[in-house]
Formats: sequence, C-alpha cells, structure tokens
Amino acid sequence: MTRSAPQRGFPNAEFEARTEAAQAGMAEAGLDGLLVMSEPEVRYFTGFQTLFWQSPTRPWFVFVPASGKPIAVIPEIGAALMRTCWIDDIRTWSAPNPQDDGISLLRDLLAPLAAQGARIGLPKGHETALRMPLADWERLMAALPGMQVRDATGLMQGLRMIKSDAEIEKLRHICAIGSATFDHVPDFVEVGQPLDEIFRAFKRAALGLGADDVPYLVGSAAPGGYVDVISPPSARPLQHRDVLMMDTGCVWDGYFCDFDRNWAIGAGGDAAQRAYDVLWRATEAGLAAAQPGHTCRDVFVAMSGVIGELDESGGDIGRLGHGLGMQLTEQPSHAAFDETVLAQNMVLTLEPSLSYGGGLMMVHEENIVVRADGAELLSRRAPAALPVLR
Amino acid sequence: MTRSAPQRGFPNAEFEARTEAAQAGMAEAGLDGLLVMSEPEVRYFTGFQTLFWQSPTRPWFVFVPASGKPIAVIPEIGAALMRTCWIDDIRTWSAPNPQDDGISLLRDLLAPLAAQGARIGLPKGHETALRMPLADWERLMAALPGMQVRDATGLMQGLRMIKSDAEIEKLRHICAIGSATFDHVPDFVEVGQPLDEIFRAFKRAALGLGADDVPYLVGSAAPGGYVDVISPPSARPLQHRDVLMMDTGCVWDGYFCDFDRNWAIGAGGDAAQRAYDVLWRATEAGLAAAQPGHTCRDVFVAMSGVIGELDESGGDIGRLGHGLGMQLTEQPSHAAFDETVLAQNMVLTLEPSLSYGGGLMMVHEENIVVRADGAELLSRRAPAALPVLR
Repeated sequence: MTRSAPQRGFPNAEFEARTEAAQAGMAEAGLDGLLVMSEPEVRYFTGFQTLFWQSPTRPWFVFVPASGKPIAVIPEIGAALMRTCWIDDIRTWSAPNPQDDGISLLRDLLAPLAAQGARIGLPKGHETALRMPLADWERLMAALPGMQVRDATGLMQGLRMIKSDAEIEKLRHICAIGSATFDHVPDFVEVGQPLDEIFRAFKRAALGLGADDVPYLVGSAAPGGYVDVISPPSARPLQHRDVLMMDTGCVWDGYFCDFDRNWAIGAGGDAAQRAYDVLWRATEAGLAAAQPGHTCRDVFVAMSGVIGELDESGGDIGRLGHGLGMQLTEQPSHAAFDETVLAQNMVLTLEPSLSYGGGLMMVHEENIVVRADGAELLSRRAPAALPVLR
Repeated sequence: MTRSAPQRGFPNAEFEARTEAAQAGMAEAGLDGLLVMSEPEVRYFTGFQTLFWQSPTRPWFVFVPASGKPIAVIPEIGAALMRTCWIDDIRTWSAPNPQDDGISLLRDLLAPLAAQGARIGLPKGHETALRMPLADWERLMAALPGMQVRDATGLMQGLRMIKSDAEIEKLRHICAIGSATFDHVPDFVEVGQPLDEIFRAFKRAALGLGADDVPYLVGSAAPGGYVDVISPPSARPLQHRDVLMMDTGCVWDGYFCDFDRNWAIGAGGDAAQRAYDVLWRATEAGLAAAQPGHTCRDVFVAMSGVIGELDESGGDIGRLGHGLGMQLTEQPSHAAFDETVLAQNMVLTLEPSLSYGGGLMMVHEENIVVRADGAELLSRRAPAALPVLR
C-alpha cells in the first residue's frame, strides 16, 4: 500500500446531510419526492454498495420523500445488505418476477402522492439512463394518474458534483494508488511483451498496491503514436519506438480515479514529443483555470488555446475533462456548452487530447479537487516531457 | 494459463448469421427494424467491444434494418474502433452534446420508416433498461409521429440464449480459468487474513491465470455460515470455523463465467456440512434435469425438491440459476415462472441456495452448456463434501 487507507463507508451524518440537501433542493424545485434507480444514486442516498448491479436482471429503487429518510424498494436478495445501511423503510419483493418487478410496491408507495397531483423528480436528462424496463415504467405511470414527473437531472448533478471531505479522502486515496501503479510501469513493461499481458500486469500491480478493483483500463501502443483510446488491448508485442498509453479507472470503496499516462518505448519521435509537450502545457493551463467562480467552459477554452498550437480542430471527443466520483465520468463537462460554475470540493479530470501527425492522437489526464485558491492535484503530476522506457 | 486460449473476436460470418437470424425473427414478428442500445446488444450485432461503456455520459445506438447490415449511430470517440468491425454504415456525432446526443441522427435514420407507419422493435421488457435519457427517448418519439414501437425483448432473448460454438469456446475458456483460480485458493488463504485481502489475492490469481478482468467478486466469511451473498468484502480477519464463500464473474474476450465455491476454515460444522450436501445434490438434480426439451421450470422444480429436504421456503432469491454469456446474468431464469424450453447450446448456471440454521444461507453454483444428451459442465464440479481449508 502506498499510504494508510481512510475509513471505509461513511458515518450516518453523511447520508443525513445528503438527504437534507436533496430535500432542500426538492422544496426549491417544487418537488414532492425524488425517485432514483441507478447504482450511484441509490448508493448516494443509502450507502448500499455491491457489485451485484452487474446483473441486469433486477431493478432497484430509492424514493426520497419531501421529509424523512429515503425508502428502499428493492429485491429481497439485497435486504440483508440494505439493513446494514442507515435507512429504516425497506420494502422488498422476491425478484426476478417478470409480472411485477417492484411495480406494485412502487405504485402503493406513490399512489397517495399521485392522488394529490404531486410532482416527483426523476433524473431523465443528459447522462442519465432509465435502469428499469421501459414497459414497466410506462405501466407504473399508467397506474398513477395525476402523478407529474419532472426532470431532476440538474438537482442530482448539483448534489453529487460537490464532494464531502470524506469522499475527497477516498478519491485522494485511489488517485494515490493509481499514481503508484503508473510509477511501477517501468518494472513490468518491456519490449516484446504482448499488450494484453501488460494490461494484466498493471491490474495486478494496482490490486497489490491496494485498489479494490481495476474496472477500467484501456489504451494502445503503436509506432509513433496511437489512433484509438477506448480499445481493449491486442496481443501485439510492444515494439521499439511505440508510444504506449494506458488510461485507468481504479476503484477504492466505490470511488474512482481516472487518469492516463504515456510512454515512448526506447525512443520518442519528435512528433509524439511535441504532442506530449502541448498536452502537458494544456493541462497546466487547465490547472490554472480551475478556480472557484470560473466555468467549465473557461477551463475548456484555456486548454483549447494551447491545444490549438498543434491541432486547430481540438479533436472530436467532445470535451476536455469531466467530473469524477462514484462513476468513472460524472457531470460536469469541460466543454464549450457547459457553463457550470466551479466550486470548492468539486473533483474533476483535466483531459486534453489532440490529433497530430496525420491520423494519430494523444490524450493526457490529471485528477484534481477545486479548492478556494485553485486546483489541487489528486493524481501525481505527469512528467513534463514524454517519458522514455528503455 | 490453464490451457491455450481460443481465438479472440469472431469471424464476420458470426455477425452475419446473428443479423440474419434477427431479421428472420423480425419478419416473423412483423418488425421493420430493431433498435438496440445496451452494451451486449450493440456488441452482439457489431463486435464492438470496449470498457468505455463504464462512462455513462454517452448513448450508443445500433439499428438493424429489415435487410442488410446493422447501422451504428455512435459518438465520434468510438468511430475508430467501430470501423474495425464488420459494419459499413457508421454515423457519428461529437458527444457529449446535451442539446442533441444522437437524437437528430436517429430521427433522420428512422423518419422514412415512421412516415410509412413502420413497426420497430425495442427491448423494453423484463431484464432490460433504457440506456439513454428518458427525456431524449420521449423527444425522439415525438419527432417520429407514426412510428410504432413494439417490445423486442423476447426476440433478443431468443437470439442470445443459444450460443454459437465460438461463444461456447470463450465461455469454456473463462470457466476453466475460474476453476483454476478456485483451485489455487488454498495457496493464498489463511486464518487471520482480512477478507478484502483474500479478494485481492483471488483477483490477482485469476488475472495471472489468464482472465482479462475480474469485474465480479462477492462473498462472505462468518462463523458457521454467512447471511448475505452480494456484499463487498469486509476487513475482518478470517477465523477458525468460518464458512468462506466467493462468487466470481471473471471475463475473457467479453464472456463471463459465474460460479462460486464454499470452504470451511479449519473445520466445518455439522449444519454447514449438511447444507452443502443438500446443495451439492440439488445441483446433481439440476444437471440431470437440464436436457433439451425440458423447461427452466423443470430444472427449478428438480433442484427445489432437493433443497426442500432442509429448507421448505427455497429461500427468496427468486430463482435457482440463469443464462450466462456476455453478461453475468442473462435470460432465461430457473424459476417457477419461466417456461423457456431448454435447447442445445444454451449456456446456463445452476445456482441452488437455501436458508438454514436460523438465518444463515448458503449458495452453490456451476456453469453448464446444454447438449443433445444433457448438461455438459463448463466449471469443474465442486467437491461433493464441504472442503476444509487447514
């Protein structure tokens, strides 16, 4: 381990504060309740943490009333774990049940509100999904005449974007583990090694350094530079003059790091070195711009200005960084369209990318927390020049 | 590595056959197209494989027309990888774009069909989710007056339940890696070791034996038996007389194993030994029942009959096994409600569970492929008596 680990989990006060903040936002938005069903949202309000979400079979629901504790409507298989959480009202059914996967329980819960023409919030906007069968959602709505559903995406985003001190400690810890793992790369990477074996070695190293999981590791290695940044690894052996990139999302206690590193194998070509230098300085510009009161757009513009030295298009990935927390990518986005005002305790990635050399691309990424006086790095800053593995 | 690995990926003929089978099913159901957006469905038709789905930011779409190759409507960041797949028509946008995350591209693609009052299929039933913002779905439907949307859950389930020989080879390979990893457990587990460290050691072992990833590992260890089967590991040190259970979904080339193993630490109590024996024999009954022509319900009844020796409730997990493939759990379910007729080349789990000893529970799981003459094990059969780690 690189450092002593923080405490796992959260005191109940954390969930109380989250719920109260949600309820304050609901009151402001005129919402009589909030229905969530995604893994991070259910965890946000309850602390319910399990990998069982990887089974798509069963839906899970949490309803946040206008006052009082959240109510869980979940499959019976999750009851024992949910009972260890801070909430009291846990309603379960024997799932899967294709005829009624929680729908009548939800209807019974919401019918009194629907009868009053209540408004409930549902995150149904940008970056959300409906983690239940659409047909069941339609059936539930048909069973709740009078219920008004409003988009609560902005409300949830506003809550989750600002991290608590305890969340930041978890994020700092997993970023330190990610940094330590990248530091070890020269120990287990060598010319001739298949890329998929390098990926396995990376994951084993991260686990050995204290990561709970390495759910995300993508990257590439190709002569002089790479063309794709989301592929699984090939079995191609690493070659002299390759540029190697690995981008990882490691997890500790349910919180992600998300950053990447680049290496030249044996020797770095001029074009790759130049691209790296531009990206490193673009990140410096992003670090300087990531201040409370500035917008995500400001951070985007600051990085784009440097990227423009080499690549006027700025690439077509759509943004130059994003929020980070219980998910690999969270709102907001460092993009021209995002006017979100940065605030203290936002945890963000800075992720400039560019195209160069006729079809090659390069990415570079750091993780930060916004403090009163600007960006504090959570990842250990990448070296200023493209490192060479010999 | 436990054995030489199969070829990664699939020949184009595999995707052609999948598409033709889908189109035959669509014709039978009177569908003029099929819209899918989940990771396994997009991969099923295109071969597009990436961990990038872990970012919830961007939606991805594939449309299967009544004839011809599927059409991808995807974020530009996936274009390079999608171009390595067999399909030709790839339409991209610079995502994320909160104003238009693929919706106008989808509208342009589907508008000619909508104008004819066409019927398109969408998986919107049991075990599905809508992996796009609900508000965007509603906006798309509003832009396509005349379009009729039909539930295609049964169609997709029917296609994906029957595995090709190439898929079965991948599943066999990852099940062999899972079995080999469980065989190594006595080498890295000892009394006094914190459970979370045991989990890390398990993942490192599986990676070392050739797994691409270990995205799913849950389990418990507690005196005489456990009470919960979906928790992340605690830091509690393993103790003499604990029953330890680990349940893993390892992945190779995008295909999952999903089975568990139990051990008594030092000595197994009578109650745990008895529960294990019942579950082992319930699995034998399931193996005998898993024949072409029998139903999932038949398999459930066969296993329940044995479980009833000890636990008349049969627990409340809702089913005693499920399909297995690109997801940790797929349809069908071994449950009283599921009349799916077993057919050759279905890959399934047999997963009996029971409650015993006043609040304890135990699970047991194997992975099989249904052959003409019955079940063929893909996992190495668990020992007939509760193994003791000394």
